[in-house]
Amino acid sequence: MVVAAQSLEELCINSIRFLAIDAVEKAKSGHPGLPMGAAPMAFVLWDRFMRFNPKNPKWYNRDRFVLSAGHGSMLQYALLYLMGYDSVSLDDIKQFRQWHSQTPGHPENFVTAGVEVTTGPLGQGIANGVGLAMAEAHDAATFNKPDANLVDHYTYVILGDGCNMEGVSGEACSLAGHLGLGKLIALYDDNHISIDGNTEISFTEDVSKRFEAYGWHVQHVENGNTDLDAIADAIAKAKEVTDKPSFIKITTTIGYGSPNKQNTAGVHGAALGGDEVAATRKNLGWDYEPFVVPDDALAHFRKAVERGANLEGEWSKTWENYKAKYPQEADEFERRISGKLPEGWEKALPTFTPQEKGKATRQYSEGVLNALAPVLPELIGGSADLTHSNLTEMKGFGNFQKGQYQNRNLRFGVREHGMGAICNGIGLHYSGLIPYCATFLVFADYMRAAIRLSALSEIGVIYVMTHDSIALGEDGPTHQPVETIASLRAIPELLVMRPADGNETSGAYKVAVENRNRPTLIALTRQALPNLNGSSVDVVSKGAYVLSDSEGTPDLILIGTGSEVSLCVEAAEKLTAEGKKVRVVSMPCWELFEEQDAAYKESVLPKAVTTRLVVEAASRFGWERYIGDQGDMISIDRFGASAPGNVLMEKFGFTVENVLDKAKALLG
Amino acid sequence: MVVAAQSLEELCINSIRFLAIDAVEKAKSGHPGLPMGAAPMAFVLWDRFMRFNPKNPKWYNRDRFVLSAGHGSMLQYALLYLMGYDSVSLDDIKQFRQWHSQTPGHPENFVTAGVEVTTGPLGQGIANGVGLAMAEAHDAATFNKPDANLVDHYTYVILGDGCNMEGVSGEACSLAGHLGLGKLIALYDDNHISIDGNTEISFTEDVSKRFEAYGWHVQHVENGNTDLDAIADAIAKAKEVTDKPSFIKITTTIGYGSPNKQNTAGVHGAALGGDEVAATRKNLGWDYEPFVVPDDALAHFRKAVERGANLEGEWSKTWENYKAKYPQEADEFERRISGKLPEGWEKALPTFTPQEKGKATRQYSEGVLNALAPVLPELIGGSADLTHSNLTEMKGFGNFQKGQYQNRNLRFGVREHGMGAICNGIGLHYSGLIPYCATFLVFADYMRAAIRLSALSEIGVIYVMTHDSIALGEDGPTHQPVETIASLRAIPELLVMRPADGNETSGAYKVAVENRNRPTLIALTRQALPNLNGSSVDVVSKGAYVLSDSEGTPDLILIGTGSEVSLCVEAAEKLTAEGKKVRVVSMPCWELFEEQDAAYKESVLPKAVTTRLVVEAASRFGWERYIGDQGDMISIDRFGASAPGNVLMEKFGFTVENVLDKAKALLG
Repeated sequence: MVVAAQSLEELCINSIRFLAIDAVEKAKSGHPGLPMGAAPMAFVLWDRFMRFNPKNPKWYNRDRFVLSAGHGSMLQYALLYLMGYDSVSLDDIKQFRQWHSQTPGHPENFVTAGVEVTTGPLGQGIANGVGLAMAEAHDAATFNKPDANLVDHYTYVILGDGCNMEGVSGEACSLAGHLGLGKLIALYDDNHISIDGNTEISFTEDVSKRFEAYGWHVQHVENGNTDLDAIADAIAKAKEVTDKPSFIKITTTIGYGSPNKQNTAGVHGAALGGDEVAATRKNLGWDYEPFVVPDDALAHFRKAVERGANLEGEWSKTWENYKAKYPQEADEFERRISGKLPEGWEKALPTFTPQEKGKATRQYSEGVLNALAPVLPELIGGSADLTHSNLTEMKGFGNFQKGQYQNRNLRFGVREHGMGAICNGIGLHYSGLIPYCATFLVFADYMRAAIRLSALSEIGVIYVMTHDSIALGEDGPTHQPVETIASLRAIPELLVMRPADGNETSGAYKVAVENRNRPTLIALTRQALPNLNGSSVDVVSKGAYVLSDSEGTPDLILIGTGSEVSLCVEAAEKLTAEGKKVRVVSMPCWELFEEQDAAYKESVLPKAVTTRLVVEAASRFGWERYIGDQGDMISIDRFGASAPGNVLMEKFGFTVENVLDKAKALLG
Repeated sequence: MVVAAQSLEELCINSIRFLAIDAVEKAKSGHPGLPMGAAPMAFVLWDRFMRFNPKNPKWYNRDRFVLSAGHGSMLQYALLYLMGYDSVSLDDIKQFRQWHSQTPGHPENFVTAGVEVTTGPLGQGIANGVGLAMAEAHDAATFNKPDANLVDHYTYVILGDGCNMEGVSGEACSLAGHLGLGKLIALYDDNHISIDGNTEISFTEDVSKRFEAYGWHVQHVENGNTDLDAIADAIAKAKEVTDKPSFIKITTTIGYGSPNKQNTAGVHGAALGGDEVAATRKNLGWDYEPFVVPDDALAHFRKAVERGANLEGEWSKTWENYKAKYPQEADEFERRISGKLPEGWEKALPTFTPQEKGKATRQYSEGVLNALAPVLPELIGGSADLTHSNLTEMKGFGNFQKGQYQNRNLRFGVREHGMGAICNGIGLHYSGLIPYCATFLVFADYMRAAIRLSALSEIGVIYVMTHDSIALGEDGPTHQPVETIASLRAIPELLVMRPADGNETSGAYKVAVENRNRPTLIALTRQALPNLNGSSVDVVSKGAYVLSDSEGTPDLILIGTGSEVSLCVEAAEKLTAEGKKVRVVSMPCWELFEEQDAAYKESVLPKAVTTRLVVEAASRFGWERYIGDQGDMISIDRFGASAPGNVLMEKFGFTVENVLDKAKALLG
């Protein structure tokens, strides 16, 4: 490499590179290779194309940027600092990867303003990008007018080989192609190096051809290291293609500029080391001290501040005109992006009396979704090809399809993982949309990485999971959750709901809709359940409550969730008739119960009453918290089996008789 | 459709169709559509190509068949019955989907002889097929001689739209293309219907082109309903292509023959109903009563019995010749397929003394793998592109690559889910191979559906999961498991290990290798740990044991796992010096401890000693089982953070000082 006088653009690109190099070096931890290789494409994108306002990272109509290859976080932090965001200072960059810093190891949307989505787990970011683009398309179709382009931005994603190997990206990108999301533009950092070495050892498919097969517009920039105009041309062309998402393969050199480490896996995930940093400085003609950005470069970058103010200013004019011309739509738009729910929406939640014939909780859920659909126009979602089993269609609200983006029923196909990640993206668009998605509960396993990211990233996705126990019957153990509920309850910040009847199902949705900063997962039955005496919509927010009680201190507490609560009720009636003092506690949500004050918890589950029997058609795992040392549980601690649901419930002991037997054994 | 006199082949195909129709009708549950549409391809495959012996379903050199679209299980049961397998009788078919039947809702390898892999969760089967083909390729490269083709079979997979939408199939098929697995042949039942309706609503990509991009040989049979010769030609051509896996798109009509339901989602997953069954009988000219197979058809099918005996007979001759010429290799082959481990293999397991300098348990694991590699030639595996972080390379044993199938290091790429499913396939080849696979523990979430199937399907996959707590440090919460261990412990039949030092790591592998019918997951640290006084290899099989003890009954039991055991030991020493009676229990594996007899359990955790402190750098979830009502735990019940590992461990309370504080609080 010959060092020549650097153009301003080279100065800028090297500024990005060396901030990354120096920050990783100081932290002795991090990933310099991607920022060094992808700096040119990122610079061209942010400098020539991206529309954003550094001083208002939440400006609604900004272009969204996702660094799907999240390990290259220093690329993003460098850009945020250089472009003039207040969230990342030079000091913050010096604190890269340290306790309580603004610059954690991977981009975290809940820490650093300007970071749209949390990335790191590979493949998620590009799938989030699909969700962001879907949200934009929906908002545009909903609010734009022939004379007012209120909603009009792009979603740009930088992804790498790792993202492209992950199945979740394939799922989401196949759907993106199907939907023809023209404002989604993905830049593929094709550096043919992954952690294990050259991609030749495991990844030799023709990625571009695969994206063509998905229906994307595909281009290739052969020299992504120095041919900035080619990068720019490709992005410009991608923007012109409005009926397909765009995939730009940009061939680069990982760790570009490091004379001994570039184009090797060695530069991927470790500091270069002092000698190689020095060699790279020499090689790239970089005479600046660590963390020093040349004035010319910084001045150029910081033009983004004025540019951004102007862009937002122009948009504000559009917005003012829009408000004047379309006051009703403007009110609605404003309400949504403020995150406010419509006044009185919760009045639409159905309520039930014990006299009403019982239905499956998935049917109650269908009723709730269809009751909410008209009053919560921001509700948008669907199923991974199980619409008529999950019962998640909002009738009359159409399918979200190419050219029909105003519609609100999403058809995800059999792509659970992509579905979860897409819903995360929709939530992170922060346009007030409430995404929900559905599959069988057991297939939460397919999308668990996305559910975890909903919780970590503070996204109020609603997971509608039906067929929630062995009672689903004949499909057998591959389809029967046993440990699934426990495994979900273990996830921090995720509300796991298992409603017992119609009112509790409404209550579960009430909680889910109100919790806009954490996800809720609602486990629902395939089979019919009676409406219970004593249930209500509002009590669900307590997590657990006394459904029926004895006079005075009970001798026994029966604790149930979902389909097993009615067994507890029946057993309690029989035991009461026999003179026992029995309380029934319905416990739709552990996490909410744990959040109640000590007095409430004691009022529901008094410490002194240690004779407790839990009934849940799922694993005992974790229930010891409530069972205590003296209690017992009717659980299922093996895989299920294929047989009619009622047969299975009987064989596995979920009968009133067995509850009575176990209760009497406990009572002695 | 015009009914004409039926050829023998039509009779046979309709026999399959009506067994499926009638069984689903009787069960009032199941999926008739796929068997009706895919019967022609399945018939051609099984009748003209597949090499198997119905009377010995475990014949080593049989072609493997995987019904990846497992909901079409009646297709497979019909074939097994018709071809003369003893495992499925006509009575069994009449018991379809009933309690304890041989014909569960989805194919289960552990129930029905002749079913190679458990399918139902979509996309898994084709990925298992990749694993089966890899196992065949490895065995062939290991054992075949220029004059003896001992190992020589195909793996055939029928998959549908659902499988092709799932990311896991994409991951595995991309790798299969890379590896050039010429003896893997996938038949894609292209019926353009999924549960939600026509695939036009969510799945319009060019699937064939995608498989071409993966490097597969791709064909299209346009009329898969009646053009049997075209199907046969395609399969024959696929067999001729030896350097690429083959993908045959076969366009069919779901529910073929049902006049009112074919080509609709209505025929996918529900019984046709009496009227439509009658209409279908009329339409296809089928005058037979339910469950009646015409004699001519049955006689033709049953030729498979003699054919199979001959095929196995021929192979037995090859085998006898092989034994005579290559007695050493023959002994090894015989040992492996018998499932016997080499005599004395366990002597290779490294042992350690407290004097030896501590290392990370992932480093001990590397030592174990490399110690076992020479003595366990059936050990085969690798990492999802984290080889040098997981430390899972068997040095000197080469990379399993196209044309290098004798090598044993698998390079999965960043494809965790595909990796797990492939390992399941390798295990289910039953050639004695011991598959292992590796990633960061937190990414168990990406592959959880495959891990669950290892457990359900009784496959001894070894999951090597490193970076097992917040102590991994700077990568931050996206990479830090917190709830992951709990979520895995919840899975039935999965052994979850968290070894505390070198001996326990060896012990974890000893258990893992010995357990050939259930999976083991070993959680390993990034950071160094001391070798403990009192640990041993063999004691790990007890799941938990007394590592150090007080005189007489302890006042306090400290329970730790993995990296926190040494904290407990240090704290115990200090408490003992202060006159407290303290026991330290190391608990590398809950599941094994639960399997011990009551006396042993009482000897480790006496019921009377209720003052217990658990220390594990993970969620408290589930630990109440051992904490009890009087105990406490130092846990982490929120997501982690980005900072150096030692800083995090201190901030989150994993210090000797905090153990002492909490212990003293408990002791009062």
